[in-house]
Amino acid sequence: MSSNATPPSRPATLEDVARVAGVSRATVSRVINGAASVDPALRRAVEQAVDATRYVPNRAARSLVTRRTDSVALVVSERRDLTVSSPFVGRMFSDPHFGRVVSGLLEVLRPAGVQLMLMLADDDASCDRLVGYLRQGHVDGVVLISQHAADPLPELLAASALPAVLAGRPARPDLPIGSVDVDQAAGAALAADHLMARGCRRIGTITGPLDMPSGRHRLDGFTAAAARHGRGDVVTVEGDFTQHGGATAMTALLQRRPDLDGVFVASDLMALGALPVLHRRGRSVPDDVAVVGFDDSSAALACEPQLTTVRQPVEEMAAEMARSLLARINDPQQPALSRVFDPELVVRRSA
Amino acid sequence: MSSNATPPSRPATLEDVARVAGVSRATVSRVINGAASVDPALRRAVEQAVDATRYVPNRAARSLVTRRTDSVALVVSERRDLTVSSPFVGRMFSDPHFGRVVSGLLEVLRPAGVQLMLMLADDDASCDRLVGYLRQGHVDGVVLISQHAADPLPELLAASALPAVLAGRPARPDLPIGSVDVDQAAGAALAADHLMARGCRRIGTITGPLDMPSGRHRLDGFTAAAARHGRGDVVTVEGDFTQHGGATAMTALLQRRPDLDGVFVASDLMALGALPVLHRRGRSVPDDVAVVGFDDSSAALACEPQLTTVRQPVEEMAAEMARSLLARINDPQQPALSRVFDPELVVRRSA
Repeated sequence: MSSNATPPSRPATLEDVARVAGVSRATVSRVINGAASVDPALRRAVEQAVDATRYVPNRAARSLVTRRTDSVALVVSERRDLTVSSPFVGRMFSDPHFGRVVSGLLEVLRPAGVQLMLMLADDDASCDRLVGYLRQGHVDGVVLISQHAADPLPELLAASALPAVLAGRPARPDLPIGSVDVDQAAGAALAADHLMARGCRRIGTITGPLDMPSGRHRLDGFTAAAARHGRGDVVTVEGDFTQHGGATAMTALLQRRPDLDGVFVASDLMALGALPVLHRRGRSVPDDVAVVGFDDSSAALACEPQLTTVRQPVEEMAAEMARSLLARINDPQQPALSRVFDPELVVRRSA
Repeated sequence: MSSNATPPSRPATLEDVARVAGVSRATVSRVINGAASVDPALRRAVEQAVDATRYVPNRAARSLVTRRTDSVALVVSERRDLTVSSPFVGRMFSDPHFGRVVSGLLEVLRPAGVQLMLMLADDDASCDRLVGYLRQGHVDGVVLISQHAADPLPELLAASALPAVLAGRPARPDLPIGSVDVDQAAGAALAADHLMARGCRRIGTITGPLDMPSGRHRLDGFTAAAARHGRGDVVTVEGDFTQHGGATAMTALLQRRPDLDGVFVASDLMALGALPVLHRRGRSVPDDVAVVGFDDSSAALACEPQLTTVRQPVEEMAAEMARSLLARINDPQQPALSRVFDPELVVRRSA
């Protein structure tokens, strides 16, 4: 056997790479650990030797120095609903919300040199697999978008040693996990105040899924504000935060309240589905029925007429999540903070 | 100092976890490495001790046994074009193609117990960061969607020890990397044959970006087939595979060829933007102008009239990528194979 060849019967070691590159073991280690001060020619030689020996770097070599991977996972957790035709994956890639969150995270992570990866959890098996992977230290921290109150992931992450921040407040308020949210109830109250100020009196709302904290808080905020205006009779139909679901819910709402003159639709995407139902029934918007959405997403601009809506600053909120996560990665002793952003009413044509 | 506490001045070790859990070091190691045969009560005790000690598992402990992470990365590589308003991230979450690829991959990876993560590379810095991360062995393999011929990632991955498979053929045909593609040129020829059989004679095409292999191959296949029918005079306008770009390109095409009677639009999403331009000019589809798309994505069904298009079996192709990647992960000596799927013409209303 030649002394230069790696015996095929065992995986290549750091020493093999050093020998092939003609450099010291310490130099190989510094290249693999991403030290900035390595001479570019040496770095190139080591990288070629890594390829030639098919060396898989020992993850411990780096972790012993920094315990850092310079990567953060965005975990989107949502149970697949096998009763609806649009599966979770399709929804993730068609709901503009996720792209806005990713953009906001990258704005902070990119300059910090931190890699972002997206991971999906949509059933018990993928949830277990994901937690197992995260526990092995492949990422430094987690941003979690958790869609339903019964989701075990916020609790599993809060119990783990991994820095994590939640998009939206946790369903269990005592959970020791950082979070960033918009004041959902205050945003819904803005919608109620606006409809009342327009003179709407026969009010309905299309809610989000009521097992999602955001769906529940928007409904509670809207009905409480309507009651303050003396309207305790808000007609409520539960939607599912999809365009198709918005159309279905608007049909149901008109059946239950044919003389409707104002609606709060708890997401712009649902409003995009709901407005054509009103048009087909010959109800003009905003003259016959005023409509207010929630999110100020691209869907609000795609609506005809363009949608008056409650803006949640998704990109800014995502950037704040990234900043608070990096702070906790750099100093794990920092407490888990919760931050709540103020919503804002954006008045366009629909109300 | 109590003998049960972990000194706060150093990270917890495997031994600390074993002590707190009251089990052997070997048991802790087996739980962390995901061995299936561990007693559930012991597993629970170890997991609680991991949390209590804030132990970050040593990645080497597992890699020494299997060198496996049971995870695969889907890397989407595309240079950000700072001259267009829609950034890459927004496009990724609005183009139905990506969701279909993810669905097809999960169909194979889920039952295999393999975690999928998505990673984006859209500039030199993120590309370097990503390759650095992948080299550290955090994933077992990579599925790469690479959008432009000048992208360095296919070459970097082919040179690395990491099993990888490319969506679409590599720009450099000699690159030793597996790939899965549809026969782009044959698909475009189906579109040409169909337009000719309908009697179209004043033909145009809206292409994809011509620095993308798929854009180039669809154009070449279409013009070659048209030439075989005696039509060497196809008017060509370059598009960008977006809905907005399809509208712009159709406007340009009508300026250059006002008497157009047949168009091949190289993606359904561009056709979705192009059709309203024809309607606004009072050109009826398919009677005045026949339109054929490419992809058979959800955009084809959203077109008015519904789009005759060339189907590429995206989900099946993605499943094949996952299968061939798992095979190479299990046996790295396997050669990198390329597989080409047959396209199919789906006839609807637009041509």
